[in-house]
Amino acid sequence: MAKWVYSFGGGGADGSAELRNLLGGKGANLAEMCNIGLSVPPGFTISTEVCTYFYDNNRTYPGDLEQQVDEALGKLEALADKKFGDPTDPLLVSVRSGARASMPGMMDTVLNLGLNDTTIKGLIAKSEDPRFAYDSYRRFIQMFSDIVLGIDLHNFEDVLDSTKRTKGYTLDVQMTADDWKAIAEEYKQIVQRELGEPFPQDPKAQLWGAVGAVFGSWNNQRANTYRRLHGIPASWGTAVNVQTMVFGNMGDDCATGVAFTRDPATGTNVFYGEYLVNAQGEDVVAGIRTPQPINLVAKEANKSDLPSMEETMPALYTELAGVRETLEKHYREMQDLEFTIERDRLYILQTRNGKRTAAAALKIAVDMCNEGLITKAEAVNRVDAASLDQLLHPTLDPKAEKTVIGKGLPASPGAASGKIVMTADDAEAQAALGERVILVREETSPEDIHGMHAAAGILTTRGGMTSHAAVVARGMGRACVSGVGEIHIDQRAGTVTARGVTLKLGDTITIDGSAGEVMAGEVPTVEPELSGDFNTLMQWADEIRRMKVRTNAETPTDARTAVGFGAEGIGLCRTEHMFFEGDRITAVRRMIVADTVDQRRSALAELLPMQRQDFVDLFQIMAGHPVTIRLLDPPLHEFLPKTEADMEKVAEVAGVDPQLVKQRAAQLEEMNPMLGHRGCRLGITFPEIYEMQARAILEAVVQVHKETGATVTPEIMIPLAFSREELDILKALIDKVAEEVQQSADFDMNYLVGTMIELPRAALLADELAQTAQFFSFGTNDLTQTTFGISRDDAGHFLPDYINANVLETDPFVTLDQSGVGQLVKFACEKGRGARSDIKLGICGEHGGDPASVRFCQTAGLDYVSCSPYRVPIARLAAAQAALEAREVDA
Amino acid sequence: MAKWVYSFGGGGADGSAELRNLLGGKGANLAEMCNIGLSVPPGFTISTEVCTYFYDNNRTYPGDLEQQVDEALGKLEALADKKFGDPTDPLLVSVRSGARASMPGMMDTVLNLGLNDTTIKGLIAKSEDPRFAYDSYRRFIQMFSDIVLGIDLHNFEDVLDSTKRTKGYTLDVQMTADDWKAIAEEYKQIVQRELGEPFPQDPKAQLWGAVGAVFGSWNNQRANTYRRLHGIPASWGTAVNVQTMVFGNMGDDCATGVAFTRDPATGTNVFYGEYLVNAQGEDVVAGIRTPQPINLVAKEANKSDLPSMEETMPALYTELAGVRETLEKHYREMQDLEFTIERDRLYILQTRNGKRTAAAALKIAVDMCNEGLITKAEAVNRVDAASLDQLLHPTLDPKAEKTVIGKGLPASPGAASGKIVMTADDAEAQAALGERVILVREETSPEDIHGMHAAAGILTTRGGMTSHAAVVARGMGRACVSGVGEIHIDQRAGTVTARGVTLKLGDTITIDGSAGEVMAGEVPTVEPELSGDFNTLMQWADEIRRMKVRTNAETPTDARTAVGFGAEGIGLCRTEHMFFEGDRITAVRRMIVADTVDQRRSALAELLPMQRQDFVDLFQIMAGHPVTIRLLDPPLHEFLPKTEADMEKVAEVAGVDPQLVKQRAAQLEEMNPMLGHRGCRLGITFPEIYEMQARAILEAVVQVHKETGATVTPEIMIPLAFSREELDILKALIDKVAEEVQQSADFDMNYLVGTMIELPRAALLADELAQTAQFFSFGTNDLTQTTFGISRDDAGHFLPDYINANVLETDPFVTLDQSGVGQLVKFACEKGRGARSDIKLGICGEHGGDPASVRFCQTAGLDYVSCSPYRVPIARLAAAQAALEAREVDA
Repeated sequence: MAKWVYSFGGGGADGSAELRNLLGGKGANLAEMCNIGLSVPPGFTISTEVCTYFYDNNRTYPGDLEQQVDEALGKLEALADKKFGDPTDPLLVSVRSGARASMPGMMDTVLNLGLNDTTIKGLIAKSEDPRFAYDSYRRFIQMFSDIVLGIDLHNFEDVLDSTKRTKGYTLDVQMTADDWKAIAEEYKQIVQRELGEPFPQDPKAQLWGAVGAVFGSWNNQRANTYRRLHGIPASWGTAVNVQTMVFGNMGDDCATGVAFTRDPATGTNVFYGEYLVNAQGEDVVAGIRTPQPINLVAKEANKSDLPSMEETMPALYTELAGVRETLEKHYREMQDLEFTIERDRLYILQTRNGKRTAAAALKIAVDMCNEGLITKAEAVNRVDAASLDQLLHPTLDPKAEKTVIGKGLPASPGAASGKIVMTADDAEAQAALGERVILVREETSPEDIHGMHAAAGILTTRGGMTSHAAVVARGMGRACVSGVGEIHIDQRAGTVTARGVTLKLGDTITIDGSAGEVMAGEVPTVEPELSGDFNTLMQWADEIRRMKVRTNAETPTDARTAVGFGAEGIGLCRTEHMFFEGDRITAVRRMIVADTVDQRRSALAELLPMQRQDFVDLFQIMAGHPVTIRLLDPPLHEFLPKTEADMEKVAEVAGVDPQLVKQRAAQLEEMNPMLGHRGCRLGITFPEIYEMQARAILEAVVQVHKETGATVTPEIMIPLAFSREELDILKALIDKVAEEVQQSADFDMNYLVGTMIELPRAALLADELAQTAQFFSFGTNDLTQTTFGISRDDAGHFLPDYINANVLETDPFVTLDQSGVGQLVKFACEKGRGARSDIKLGICGEHGGDPASVRFCQTAGLDYVSCSPYRVPIARLAAAQAALEAREVDA
Repeated sequence: MAKWVYSFGGGGADGSAELRNLLGGKGANLAEMCNIGLSVPPGFTISTEVCTYFYDNNRTYPGDLEQQVDEALGKLEALADKKFGDPTDPLLVSVRSGARASMPGMMDTVLNLGLNDTTIKGLIAKSEDPRFAYDSYRRFIQMFSDIVLGIDLHNFEDVLDSTKRTKGYTLDVQMTADDWKAIAEEYKQIVQRELGEPFPQDPKAQLWGAVGAVFGSWNNQRANTYRRLHGIPASWGTAVNVQTMVFGNMGDDCATGVAFTRDPATGTNVFYGEYLVNAQGEDVVAGIRTPQPINLVAKEANKSDLPSMEETMPALYTELAGVRETLEKHYREMQDLEFTIERDRLYILQTRNGKRTAAAALKIAVDMCNEGLITKAEAVNRVDAASLDQLLHPTLDPKAEKTVIGKGLPASPGAASGKIVMTADDAEAQAALGERVILVREETSPEDIHGMHAAAGILTTRGGMTSHAAVVARGMGRACVSGVGEIHIDQRAGTVTARGVTLKLGDTITIDGSAGEVMAGEVPTVEPELSGDFNTLMQWADEIRRMKVRTNAETPTDARTAVGFGAEGIGLCRTEHMFFEGDRITAVRRMIVADTVDQRRSALAELLPMQRQDFVDLFQIMAGHPVTIRLLDPPLHEFLPKTEADMEKVAEVAGVDPQLVKQRAAQLEEMNPMLGHRGCRLGITFPEIYEMQARAILEAVVQVHKETGATVTPEIMIPLAFSREELDILKALIDKVAEEVQQSADFDMNYLVGTMIELPRAALLADELAQTAQFFSFGTNDLTQTTFGISRDDAGHFLPDYINANVLETDPFVTLDQSGVGQLVKFACEKGRGARSDIKLGICGEHGGDPASVRFCQTAGLDYVSCSPYRVPIARLAAAQAALEAREVDA
């Protein structure tokens, strides 16, 4: 015979924490607490299998369920020493849902079940408190009517409101026992009126009604949506927990409270919590009365004047502190517990792992490991890798007030305040005077780099997550909010207008690049502080992970930042970013408007020494770590100015007819630049560009060796290839340059030539590409764009709708789409390794810094992930967690 | 012992036509002709295996080759009754290359080999013609020096020129025997001077030198390039043919000529050819003397005054006509043969399948089948499917002179002449007056449709193969050349300038949409004429093919044209094309600028009856054939006008603020429209659009049934899906509409809902998509764009370089890329069939009309191909050829 019902209480239980799938989180923990001897109101759990049966069998129950429930109820009555429906001392129960995964507030709960016109008398007699009893009764009628009988709540609220109005009350506490009694009567009449039958008086009928409602609530709209959003299968089902009611509101020897076994904000190892005397659980949350600190530590920390539980109920506090001890030792995790004191007796109603801030998670993990409670591996698993982002950038002070005047894309994390400037030159000038400024523009372009560098943050009204502003800001670690369409910039008037607020040049504005929000005025920010715990955890992560973590960086500043964060090399140096700086852009533009190969070569010759020095700097900073350098990738028109005036300037500097510049710009214009004349297509059509870059890289190797004696093995990466033929042509070009450099320097060197895998065809033909490529780096940004056929820049038009409609679970540009893009990545890894067993495999798309994607990279067998400097710690931790998961799968 | 050398002649041969791989095409046919008793000068073939050995072994020969050559030479001497190096009657030979695949002019040939200072005397004695003998000698020295000794030809040409100048000659025929003798002497001195050693006198040394040079020429630059372009593997190698020389230039009883067994221009079953008395083969080609017709038929056809061979050499002509008979019977194919008559004796020097026009190919295939020479299957295989295009559109008269003033993309086939107009209104007005006009514009837009329809052809200076002009022109069957960058249009001045030529409005211009060429003035064109043979062949093809052939069409005209060409349904009806017409564009634009769903619905309601009528028309024309209708695909901004003035007009018609239209246009603007808010993304974000379209389709089904009693099963196609979720949402929408339509009409109907597979992710997840989709249609245009990451519109910047550099063999937008895109198509077919065994699979990209791609579709297991109306016959023939190939593979 199948077991459908699991009893708990009286110092033991049928179930345990192990049976979470069967009993749900709440039921499993109630059983577990009974097993470890904590004082839990007795009860029983109807398992999730009943829920499954219920839905598989047209909302009916297994034939033997009723018998098992009756038996469990019998046990319960024995333990509680009360009888269900007893008119003198009735057993009252709560009926609560409890699924495998936490679904807070999604399903239904009924309290005080078992009350009726008869048992109310017993409750009055036992509690000696008619007001409490009638209050409990009317609460039960209301809850049961709403949840089980489906009567609209407003019916009840209207009655209560009108009573209070008539009586001239403002608060519920002013209601007397008679008032509540009258209300309870009126509530019953509502039921009679709405349903044409009386409120059910049989406690058993009440029980089965509530059980059915809880199972039914598993499939309500709200629960379905929640499950879809959190990826919880409908097949899991919920359990139903039936538990003896205990009351914290039966007098001053009663109380109720919540506590955390450690401080959830800081992680400090102190007992932390709040309680209220003579109150029900919901009162603690409702905020009508101010909760009191549970102990002196909390009292001091919150500068509270209210007496703590430690002071008012010292014995019970000591018992509770003992529970804290027991729970942490047993669960080896910080717990969030609920307790009730009924007439000086402490009951624990719930325990679960406590939510905490990123900083607290870090501290708790490291502390618990140091305390010997958990292993290093467990500590590493305890911190949400993505949450580290909070620790690495300034954040808005969570206590500060803020007026949001616009919302855009969270283009680069961190919060920053500063005076509004609207030009890069202004930004630089003001910053030089010591001002913190926010550069506010419709969009940015290469000419703005110096101003972006000088600014504390960047705000644009156009452009997406890969707009110029976004990419450059992330690289520089500057906060950036992009594409705030609702903000209107009037450049001439020097005003910024949104949601009815108009700010002027020089006014202070705050942006939160992690949330994509824009605030008027200064919102205080909190600076990040990397604790010793951070470094300890990172070190443990490093001991565990298999994959290396590199960074995407091209400037010395970024490279140094990344090394500081533990980067083990550069996985992507985007040489084009180097082209935007200072005088270079002039030479680059001369190169682009060149009419002949000779003119182009002369402009390139001017760039060569600058490029060489870039690489010398990077090689020295990365001190022996691998450096992957991607040859020029973007279409040439990206380097040309957009306005007529700027074009004329370029013409002047380049010494050519302005008409020519315009013509060239028009010629280079593209319908779909993302799919245009870029990547290695430039290398095939203008080999002299790649030749110059290869020379700069290889000459830098020579120079570094001469200056420092160090041996650098650069990894030269060819972007956007879709065939082996492209690689063959360009590798031959690089080899030719290498031959020349080696001969003229009389120096032998090693270098690798590899390719990005960022087009479906490259992945599909990876075995062929690997004949020539010595390494693959998955450019998952472009691979996602082409696999989905979605332009990241334009996705804003429909991606939110797609995520709302649940077509996509997450933005595939944030978390790698394993079922589509992932298929290509895995296929390419297999084919690549098959063709060249020692091929290096890495990822350099933005996914390299996303924990879920890092986990995928581990299973795909990549050698390393590469991400922006500020995400390096996230990737290190995520890689360690991925390695642990892999070990578990292997075991 | 391996056999390296194969003798032929004397009424038999070691080899045969079967041994083409070993003996090359020429060698195999020489052997074959000997076997069937034709008079062939005897000789031997050194096999392609020697070539392979030669390159595998550092340019050396097998040890026993010399012995085998000596033996073959011995046989040859016996057959020719002459001895190599005999001073009284020397054997002279030609040494020619001959590979498996024809590589005309790519490799080297040496004639008259065996001549030296001694044997020349024998030749003089035997020929009794010293002038002939010395001419032969100097030709040999020159050829041998060039090919074997590597001496630059200009050395010899200079000497000949200066001699002629000195003597005052203008033609070679003026040279006397002494002149040639002196020339030969001087030639030998050049060799001595250049090499420091004398011209080789030993015939054996000459022979081995020539053999080595022929094998060496297999790897010359020109041959390598040719092989790469024609996909001939280097490993095939060439054979070397050594053959007795016969001379058509030893007097008036000598002649040489070429002939086709049928007329290669028309295919008529008449013997067709030219000859020259007392001449060498090269004289026929050189054009110094006018060749004479071989027979009276040819004489009459060419209105020649020259005596035919039938008249001057009746006996030999009869013999030759017999050879024609023998060859056709034997080869069962039209032959192109070369013959020489030496002293009244006829020799056949070569035979091969003759090249022919498309019309001739068709006629010959059908005739030969009717004559019982070949089977229907063979007839079907004899016509190059792609060449049918020539028969379906007007073509430039090949005999006409033309001045090309610009070259662009062959955007829509056919040739057309007409007066230059620059606006659509002008085009319509002039056409109404009976003028043929060519619409010349930078680019076209939806507003130009009426003008494009009125024009005989369209010429644009911007845009690619999928530009608006190109797509619309192909649909309409209008000739179009697009993207002619070198042409400058001055709209105000009304001039068109290119390559120094300026044409004005009203001047006549000619475009060749098959070649992408633009000509000044009128170039005569030839109208297509579909013969009965065409229909016969098509019928045979239809009996053979497995795949159905549908058409891409949306207008009644196109649909009717396609049905006329044999289309068996519509594979792609692009509903957006219907939106551009007449008043509709106004309603469409009102819909787009709508601010609210209600406004949008009201505009859509206006479109509904028009769309419904579209479908009623198509269903009636297609009379029971399946019709696949694609819901709206392009991004909405494509429907908005580009200029400020036009936007104001739209605002006026829509009754909204012009500012709103501009704002909306700016809002809809996209960086990469190809990857933007289009396809089913529109259906998800604006469900009311697809709802209207679904309603129009399904109401049309009802109407057709009511009017004609016919039952239509429409195939509703969702574009650009990458997930099952999109299909689920949109299928539910369509099902809901269907429910409503069926209820209100009280009529039950069938319809299919399917999807395009045009994104890599859709192919990768085809098993999931097939859970919902009842059919797949491969949109290989977009699938190629995304798989390669190439925007078809922008590819012009680099694709030509890519094809030149041999990165790509062919334009992947013309012929489906089997290794990349094809992988996805095959994968999706397997997955789709796996998930839904009766899923319909088709292709509706432009590849559906490309023969090589059709072949691929057969192997991928598609049920049908769909292509533009004018390509339907091509697809029918290609599908039949593909089916034959598949049978062969199976067998």
